[in-house]
Amino acid sequence: MTVSLVGAGPGDPELITVKGLARLRACDVLVYDRLVAAELVDEAPDDALRIERDRLEQDEVNEVLVSLGRRGDEVVRLKGGDPLLFGRGGEEALALARAEVPFEIVPGVSSLASVPGSVGIPVTHRGLASAVTAFAAHDVESLDVAALARMPGTLVAYMGGARADRLARRLIEHGLPASTPAAVIVRGTLPDEQVIVSPLGAVAAAPGTPALVVIGDVVGVRALLAVRRSAA
Amino acid sequence: MTVSLVGAGPGDPELITVKGLARLRACDVLVYDRLVAAELVDEAPDDALRIERDRLEQDEVNEVLVSLGRRGDEVVRLKGGDPLLFGRGGEEALALARAEVPFEIVPGVSSLASVPGSVGIPVTHRGLASAVTAFAAHDVESLDVAALARMPGTLVAYMGGARADRLARRLIEHGLPASTPAAVIVRGTLPDEQVIVSPLGAVAAAPGTPALVVIGDVVGVRALLAVRRSAA
Repeated sequence: MTVSLVGAGPGDPELITVKGLARLRACDVLVYDRLVAAELVDEAPDDALRIERDRLEQDEVNEVLVSLGRRGDEVVRLKGGDPLLFGRGGEEALALARAEVPFEIVPGVSSLASVPGSVGIPVTHRGLASAVTAFAAHDVESLDVAALARMPGTLVAYMGGARADRLARRLIEHGLPASTPAAVIVRGTLPDEQVIVSPLGAVAAAPGTPALVVIGDVVGVRALLAVRRSAA
Repeated sequence: MTVSLVGAGPGDPELITVKGLARLRACDVLVYDRLVAAELVDEAPDDALRIERDRLEQDEVNEVLVSLGRRGDEVVRLKGGDPLLFGRGGEEALALARAEVPFEIVPGVSSLASVPGSVGIPVTHRGLASAVTAFAAHDVESLDVAALARMPGTLVAYMGGARADRLARRLIEHGLPASTPAAVIVRGTLPDEQVIVSPLGAVAAAPGTPALVVIGDVVGVRALLAVRRSAA
């Protein structure tokens, strides 16, 4: 394999997969997101070239992966969560495929269930939610809020923390009850994780980043669970 | 920790998390789903008690976890995918919380993005899908098909393989174009993985289990990618 698109998981460095860690420990070059745990960046070999992705535009990342891959280097592209669930891994994969550079996708634990789970919220739960919709909320104005408000089950907004109040207001305008339980989770699965639970009508902008917004009756399960933080 | 609800990932045994594998290697009792990889069951200590979950009803599983947890055993409850995304982990967590047995949730890689990704389908992709809805489809008749058909983005049906044809027909009746790209993926991420790509109007029941049904324009990306199977 030449280029591995690897999901780092939601934050806690122990939530990378066994396969992902093996790739990381054997790489020549590591291209990583700023939000990836420092402990994982440290797992790359000492003499591996490290490139922080956030200094580059997406087009430049694609170019870097193609040119390093063409040299035959073992390249790991380490991304938060899963590469293909709001990770833009599909774009990188397409660039590599077009350039005929061999690549693989090593999936990761997405924030979708793991971050709510970390604070005691199951995104699906018998009798409460048999569906979950994950959506990118960086542009609240362009969302099909009517369809989201009508969708039964749990809603999970990625990249919507800073505008969580606006998102909540628009969902209520389109028919979601203001009393719907909601949670804003900041830095989920990390030691300084924060969770703010409120009715949808009282949701405020997240106090930090990254943040996930969870909306639906499953948020109420949290009160019933006394989830203990897992040992490090 | 006493009881760990651990996600085993989508099939490939290397897709368990580092934390999940550590729990597995240190357990006294392993309660596992039949569909979990044999390689993972083998990772438990030789003298660990192994209990196959599928011989038990859900209530009995809850009771077993509570009674073993009360004894102070290190119990691993190993589930396919993620414990909280169609994994019924929330029910087990509630039973443990009510019995005041300490527990933790160790998330896993869900099939949601990893199984489509394994066959070259990104569930989200810029310009094609900025949302994904995962839903349980074991009971096609009770689904809110109208809401699903209206939801922009990718649809992913869990437990709907055997009735994939019926699901497709109902979605079309509710307005999804019969030409919408669809894929039925059986045993995704495993060496004998199968994928059948067709327009929604031609979707047939899955030829095996477990199966995931993916519906949406992202299925078309598969044709552009030459994803290579990752090395074992």
